[in-house]
Amino acid sequence: MRYAVIMAGGSGTRLWPLSRRGMPKQLLDLVDGKSLLRLAYERLAGVVPADRVLVCTGAEHRDVVAEQLPELDPANILGEPEGRDSLNAIAWPAAVLVERDPEAVMAVLSSDHLITPVDRFAAALQDGFAAAEADRDALITFGVVPTSPHTGFGYLERGAELAGRPGVCRVEAFAEKPDRETAQKYLDTGRYLWNAGMFVWRAETFLDQLRALLPETHRTVRAIAAEPGRLAELFPGLRKISVDYAIMEPVSRGEASGHVLTVGLPIEWQDLGGFAALAGQLPADDHGNATDGLSLVLDGGDNLVINRGEDGRLVAMLGMTDTVVVQTPQITLVCPMAEAGRIKELVAEVSARLGPDYT
Amino acid sequence: MRYAVIMAGGSGTRLWPLSRRGMPKQLLDLVDGKSLLRLAYERLAGVVPADRVLVCTGAEHRDVVAEQLPELDPANILGEPEGRDSLNAIAWPAAVLVERDPEAVMAVLSSDHLITPVDRFAAALQDGFAAAEADRDALITFGVVPTSPHTGFGYLERGAELAGRPGVCRVEAFAEKPDRETAQKYLDTGRYLWNAGMFVWRAETFLDQLRALLPETHRTVRAIAAEPGRLAELFPGLRKISVDYAIMEPVSRGEASGHVLTVGLPIEWQDLGGFAALAGQLPADDHGNATDGLSLVLDGGDNLVINRGEDGRLVAMLGMTDTVVVQTPQITLVCPMAEAGRIKELVAEVSARLGPDYT
Repeated sequence: MRYAVIMAGGSGTRLWPLSRRGMPKQLLDLVDGKSLLRLAYERLAGVVPADRVLVCTGAEHRDVVAEQLPELDPANILGEPEGRDSLNAIAWPAAVLVERDPEAVMAVLSSDHLITPVDRFAAALQDGFAAAEADRDALITFGVVPTSPHTGFGYLERGAELAGRPGVCRVEAFAEKPDRETAQKYLDTGRYLWNAGMFVWRAETFLDQLRALLPETHRTVRAIAAEPGRLAELFPGLRKISVDYAIMEPVSRGEASGHVLTVGLPIEWQDLGGFAALAGQLPADDHGNATDGLSLVLDGGDNLVINRGEDGRLVAMLGMTDTVVVQTPQITLVCPMAEAGRIKELVAEVSARLGPDYT
Repeated sequence: MRYAVIMAGGSGTRLWPLSRRGMPKQLLDLVDGKSLLRLAYERLAGVVPADRVLVCTGAEHRDVVAEQLPELDPANILGEPEGRDSLNAIAWPAAVLVERDPEAVMAVLSSDHLITPVDRFAAALQDGFAAAEADRDALITFGVVPTSPHTGFGYLERGAELAGRPGVCRVEAFAEKPDRETAQKYLDTGRYLWNAGMFVWRAETFLDQLRALLPETHRTVRAIAAEPGRLAELFPGLRKISVDYAIMEPVSRGEASGHVLTVGLPIEWQDLGGFAALAGQLPADDHGNATDGLSLVLDGGDNLVINRGEDGRLVAMLGMTDTVVVQTPQITLVCPMAEAGRIKELVAEVSARLGPDYT
């Protein structure tokens, strides 16, 4: 039985004030009125039925997730009392699934990127499920076929393709984010994939590795799955660690019973994590001004204006260039596009001076 | 009997969106929570009692004026159905006053500048009243003693001081706004004053000149004063012309029975007509950021941030310099300080694209 767990945690500040503590990036209407979470769900059409889709998110975001995905059984929206990194966002749903269905095969999917085309993604996901069903000891990690020597991602080094299973390869190694030169080498070999942080495996197999490598975490997530009422008590005690560090890398090095395979994703994989990337998704006028919401830009170019203020509110700009203006009902941000990468610092300052209401 | 008429018409767009059609510059809280109109009224303390102060403003602004000047009899707030330039903003109140008091002596005062110190202004105003009472045929125009070769004002050329009346001079000529070189010459002679557009005279004397020079206007304003119910019918038909062109210049050239005198105003006379001037009135941080309202400016300098949005709304800026950000509940403006003089163009564009609701 195939299941999908969409991870929708995190509280990125890079799109502040569009994203807020209560409204992280993946829940924002960013693309044609849909959130990245909604798009992640829609990508599963024809692969995993709605009643076998789970979302793991922050407890404070459960209501918004339920609104955006009315197809889901609310019991399938798992709300973490606090963020404990990717291992626990995966291990808890895995424990929940084996409790329901010992034969569950689960895909773990992220919701923080824009993925096109959807049909290729769906086909690769089917391949991943098939590979996990064919090899009960495999942990399958998806890798995006790289289109540039990107230095912002980790990489997977592919080994040989498995006999009789086209597209499924061993993973030789996990590589940290490389420098530009190394990234170019990776690209030139054709053997490396971007580490997408998306997986598919038998839930039981995953939990077996977890039991071997982090027995305490295994015990805790099984206890939570057996007695959901103990969530708030037990979850915060979980060790904060990423799934790659905790499971994927040790297993790939032979430190547990399973083995790591990879399936390539021949997709466009776009992080909408910053305003520059977001500007590229919006319609632009003849002067390169990308806008969303009521605005008027006179004698200026290459601006990004996002106006999510109340109906009827106007942002008017005169003679500005390369500037980001983002307006929400509570906050208006103005910064040069070139400084948009530093918004985290601004949010820290806002938090320090004005308190958490503004973050 | 001394009266004062404060002119509070006009709908300047240079401070848009702070100033709006419904809220022109002189009605805005600009200085320590007071409007320029309120300050103009307070400058009369000890010179003209509240029950003899009139305000001439646009009909649509009567309520705001009444709120800002609760001391005034609402009957003394004259609302023009539409703007017909300064002649009619003066002639109508003059006709109203002679109807009430044939011996009325009226000062005509503007409300669009910041004037300091107030005591010197009050003393000069007293001198003006005394001069008008001593010389029943005089039209007295106030001239600001210039402190720079300003090219944005018209000038008055002073003649000789009148015998036995210190500080009261004949006016030799009215001069248009000069170029820089001419303005410097004016300043060097010591004989020129900035034409302040403020006056004092017997209302009857002013109306006599008006009857001689523009008999149709005279007839109309007298008819409105006699039958206030005909205001909306008659006022729009008045010829649109400034008081200088219609009365002061012809009288100074001997084209009517009166004569023009001037009294100098030894004051600081500051036009808050643009954002650069306004920034100078606001407290600034160590980096020259002048702010009013809730804002946070990180790593930037010499910005002007005016946040008049609803309570709790924040303007946050990162890495911006020399930029004006003005936020009102409906509109947010962003422009470089150097472009702020072009806001009129922006307002025209806003009006054309979005209609009058935004102007």
